[in-house]
Amino acid sequence: MFTRVDHVGIAVRDLDAAISFYEKTFGVSFTYRHTAQDQGVEEAMGQVGESWIQLLKPLGAETPVGKFIESRGEGVHHIGYGVADVRAALEELKGHDIRLIDEHPRPGSRGASIAFIHPKSVGGVLVELVQE
Amino acid sequence: MFTRVDHVGIAVRDLDAAISFYEKTFGVSFTYRHTAQDQGVEEAMGQVGESWIQLLKPLGAETPVGKFIESRGEGVHHIGYGVADVRAALEELKGHDIRLIDEHPRPGSRGASIAFIHPKSVGGVLVELVQE
Repeated sequence: MFTRVDHVGIAVRDLDAAISFYEKTFGVSFTYRHTAQDQGVEEAMGQVGESWIQLLKPLGAETPVGKFIESRGEGVHHIGYGVADVRAALEELKGHDIRLIDEHPRPGSRGASIAFIHPKSVGGVLVELVQE
Repeated sequence: MFTRVDHVGIAVRDLDAAISFYEKTFGVSFTYRHTAQDQGVEEAMGQVGESWIQLLKPLGAETPVGKFIESRGEGVHHIGYGVADVRAALEELKGHDIRLIDEHPRPGSRGASIAFIHPKSVGGVLVELVQE
């Protein structure tokens, strides 16, 4: 089902500082920046090989990423895996007794179609399926 | 500096159960299994595109991964990024006031040369540099 690691989603308090840090320290260029009101984040994405580092700044303390930072601090928030067809992947997962956050695909970053799987079903890892 | 996401390191309590879950649910094949006494883990690696999912089972409660699970539960433990030359990368990072866990490269999985960077220097993300 997984074709690649699409991205590593990282919760940060200060998006500008995090972008600057990753650029200066690790040479990652952040070519995409976007505010996703529906997900409560401002995000920036920098390419690394066939994957991306996605920096996520919460738009408020009551957003999912805001609550994550409040309880666990900054750090890895979720892993996005590439799939050929997110709708087919969701159908397949429904046969595996997996707890889905999104029953149907919805629009994600960079024009992708995405769906989240609950971390309780994946050993504590919040998983995002990404169809580019 | 980063050439790709080398692997996502995931802390698990039961390695056999986790391997079986990822294989049956997501179609990931775990082709490498190894006990790393020096790191206090039994690990399994499954390829996804140019990256790997690394499942890490602690060898005891007092190991780093054992303590991680005790305090935070199962989940993403660290991110490994590919670099062309881990020794050169460490030298470059020493000029950036980064807190290194490993000042010098050491042997890692699958014959790689690796070094860890402290999560306090990388916004809560434990980062591993990996030279294959």
